[in-house]
Amino acid sequence: MGSILVVGSLAYDDVRTPFAAQDGVLGGAASYFSMAASLYAPVRLVGVVGDDFREADLGRLRARGIDISGIERRRGRSFRWTGVYDFVNDTAETVNTDLGVFGDWRPQIPEAYADSEFVFLANIDPEIQLATLAQMRRPKVVALDTMNYWIEHSREALINVIRKVDVVSINEGEARQLFETFKIVKAAREILALGPKVLVVKRGENGATLFTKDGSFWAPAYPLEETVDPTGAGDTFAGGFVGYIAECGGFEDAAVLRRAVLHGTVCASYSVERFSVDGIASVDRGAVDARYRALHELIRV
Amino acid sequence: MGSILVVGSLAYDDVRTPFAAQDGVLGGAASYFSMAASLYAPVRLVGVVGDDFREADLGRLRARGIDISGIERRRGRSFRWTGVYDFVNDTAETVNTDLGVFGDWRPQIPEAYADSEFVFLANIDPEIQLATLAQMRRPKVVALDTMNYWIEHSREALINVIRKVDVVSINEGEARQLFETFKIVKAAREILALGPKVLVVKRGENGATLFTKDGSFWAPAYPLEETVDPTGAGDTFAGGFVGYIAECGGFEDAAVLRRAVLHGTVCASYSVERFSVDGIASVDRGAVDARYRALHELIRV
Repeated sequence: MGSILVVGSLAYDDVRTPFAAQDGVLGGAASYFSMAASLYAPVRLVGVVGDDFREADLGRLRARGIDISGIERRRGRSFRWTGVYDFVNDTAETVNTDLGVFGDWRPQIPEAYADSEFVFLANIDPEIQLATLAQMRRPKVVALDTMNYWIEHSREALINVIRKVDVVSINEGEARQLFETFKIVKAAREILALGPKVLVVKRGENGATLFTKDGSFWAPAYPLEETVDPTGAGDTFAGGFVGYIAECGGFEDAAVLRRAVLHGTVCASYSVERFSVDGIASVDRGAVDARYRALHELIRV
Repeated sequence: MGSILVVGSLAYDDVRTPFAAQDGVLGGAASYFSMAASLYAPVRLVGVVGDDFREADLGRLRARGIDISGIERRRGRSFRWTGVYDFVNDTAETVNTDLGVFGDWRPQIPEAYADSEFVFLANIDPEIQLATLAQMRRPKVVALDTMNYWIEHSREALINVIRKVDVVSINEGEARQLFETFKIVKAAREILALGPKVLVVKRGENGATLFTKDGSFWAPAYPLEETVDPTGAGDTFAGGFVGYIAECGGFEDAAVLRRAVLHGTVCASYSVERFSVDGIASVDRGAVDARYRALHELIRV
């Protein structure tokens, strides 16, 4: 079982849903990812926080066994994101983004982390993803996420980094936007043609789809009667997905990828049941495995 | 293998998509359903057409082995429907409905059909569905479809007929509308509480979900690089679903229901590849079984 390095944001989120709201809660892609991935394998987190970042929140990560010695603390405000969800979409409308210390941050990978076998480059400027990747020794599997902003403003750099990774994990709208098509099957072919062995298209309440050169795998979301807060679902998914692959030591066995999709799905389902990272932080591996079996039962023929 | 009776519309459709248009093509729920169901079991069709209905279109049904002696021909125009699809939705906007001879039609089930073991009540006024059902002897499985219009205008009658059937096959929006919830898991519980043993929620490009008292089964749509015309997808799905159940002689074996969902999915995928019933009419059982195996490969873990 190899170690996982995640490079990405730690944030404080202000979240509004039609039914409730919470302010200043722990968020950020790296937080969600780590909380899930640490259920499967050792996680090393590289990120940056301001001097307003609560020691208790670092403690929550540490309590999960996450190595947070790669978190820099700087003078200034932590990254703050304000998002609103309406009834229909599970994609937030971003009301405000205050990058704070995250704005001009350039990740430095600690020497002790450079040998990490599994790497997750969370959503950030693709130039920074490239620079981060250049600091790694010989990772076995590199996965990345991105967002519509980079597709619109840094498409060329994004394409460059996609060429260098093994796994692309993006949502359906982004996949279609990247190659301007309504059909994810077409988008998937274009993305895989750039070089990645694996594409995971996250489709919110409609599940997730895995694409490789050998075919595709279509998984539903885990059905819930209530979802409280969709924030972080994609990063928690990635945490379960990459985490399971790391636990298995890689995806030479193609069956690992399909099971990894289900693990990502289960982690995401726990995440959306509560605000912030509270949902995924409150479960242990036993709970994940139990829901994995329930999910498997929902799709077996 | 029992016979299937379908009661529903035969129509001429004018269809506009962002890429193409066709006018006056064979449509109607009973046409689509029959073309699919006849791949699995003998089908008897009860419907009504006007004196403008082309003999060649009756011939297409007959060529599929469908018993069309239950189709009445009346003076007047055949049912005509005009629908437009935009880029995003796979639900049509109905631009015009001209009921013609369908408007005041009250189905008479021929004596020779009254012993049909499997019955599909296609979308029509639920009062008429009730009156039709009353003419049947002792069907083994009765399935129904409906539409938002009846939920809004004849909810009480619709609830009454739902109480009397075994299988409800509706789309996601309708399921949520019927019990005013955003979560189909909740809607499903309410619908099953009325009495049906089986609910199938059709979710367009997002697949279909089966609900029974024992649990649920989540199937993706068969992924296509191009869809030409979504018209009739739901009825073709129902044809494959009910057809497979009829071929198996019922669904005492719960595995039949899951496989029936996949058969419905495959039939619907062929339907949307071409305008009108051309897609489903052009395939034989061998093609369906081949795509069934491909679909199964997309979901196995």
